[in-house]
Amino acid sequence: MESKGRFITFEGGEGTGKSTQIKLLSEFLEKKGIDVITSKEPGGTEVGQDLRRILVTGDKDKMDAVAEALLYYADRRIHVTKKIWPAIEQGQWVLSDRFADSTVAYQYYGYNKRVPYQTLENLYKLAVGDFKPDLTILLDIDPKIGLSRSLAKAGHMAVKETRHESRELEFHNNLRAGYLEMAKKEPDRFVVFAADKTIEALHNEIVACIEERFNLK
Amino acid sequence: MESKGRFITFEGGEGTGKSTQIKLLSEFLEKKGIDVITSKEPGGTEVGQDLRRILVTGDKDKMDAVAEALLYYADRRIHVTKKIWPAIEQGQWVLSDRFADSTVAYQYYGYNKRVPYQTLENLYKLAVGDFKPDLTILLDIDPKIGLSRSLAKAGHMAVKETRHESRELEFHNNLRAGYLEMAKKEPDRFVVFAADKTIEALHNEIVACIEERFNLK
Repeated sequence: MESKGRFITFEGGEGTGKSTQIKLLSEFLEKKGIDVITSKEPGGTEVGQDLRRILVTGDKDKMDAVAEALLYYADRRIHVTKKIWPAIEQGQWVLSDRFADSTVAYQYYGYNKRVPYQTLENLYKLAVGDFKPDLTILLDIDPKIGLSRSLAKAGHMAVKETRHESRELEFHNNLRAGYLEMAKKEPDRFVVFAADKTIEALHNEIVACIEERFNLK
Repeated sequence: MESKGRFITFEGGEGTGKSTQIKLLSEFLEKKGIDVITSKEPGGTEVGQDLRRILVTGDKDKMDAVAEALLYYADRRIHVTKKIWPAIEQGQWVLSDRFADSTVAYQYYGYNKRVPYQTLENLYKLAVGDFKPDLTILLDIDPKIGLSRSLAKAGHMAVKETRHESRELEFHNNLRAGYLEMAKKEPDRFVVFAADKTIEALHNEIVACIEERFNLK
């Protein structure tokens, strides 16, 4: 069995099924005897939970893209220092629902480059340094399908986390195109999966990828 | 009377009397017919109130200096875009209890330069651009006196805002020395007042400074 800690991130727009796939992958890895924890951004820590509430609820115009980028990076800094790095240090695998690519996708591509790319790179350097995910799983879907899934899910939530869903479709199309562009730029880190299939079919594809990438067979 | 908006910040360690002096100066300016609002950091906006609670309550180690700098700048970005700039645009005077100098004082000097100075300059550029206070009033006091004042005040507060007060005296001594160094570097923007005098004596000194600086006589 692996004793080296790993960091695997899940990325994609709203309603791509990230949290479901993380849960299934986590169960699969546990069965393989791997010590695995799941986390998410924003909100992977106790302080982060408060930041998450600020970021994903309420009016979409309550803060601009620059303020968002700063808040997401504050959450990320706490997440890596208090949770991800200590876990990896102990040999755990960490599966995270979103990480820094989300900030580039949302605050750079989604908002039509309103926050300069270089700025986001500087924030990454400041908060995360040279650390990177070992693998990033990008779940790709037509935003029209993703948003309807995501809003249906929000209908059952006590706190409506729909601040981003309330943005116009163009935002979500930019987001999707941005993610695909990022994946092209870093083909060794990103693996893209079409997410318009059954939960099980997608899970099987992800498992095959993980088994090969980390020699788990 | 003035019709141009102004931005005046109050800086200094814990318990220097900033909020009291802001209140008195605000009343003085109002009597002069000036349209003045008071604000504060963190927490000058509705979103900022939530950020303030995260930043100034709880355990001092719940986040590190980098995370703090990012959060303070997120708060500042919302503060300038949603409150300070619109007010100045309308010709109002804004008196703020703390601004960006606090981040340099606490996260750079207080923590013994743990966050690089250049990083804080980059964050300023990102969040605030070229905008600067017209005047910064630095209230200077021996931290031993300031902290005892501040903790006495906290004894009467429903929510104990004592996260920074709980740091060791060395932190607060660094902070004070840092503020004085900053004031030396920008003598046109900073005016330093010894704060170990009566509220009224200090108020009179501040009024004299403001009258001269902004031709209010």
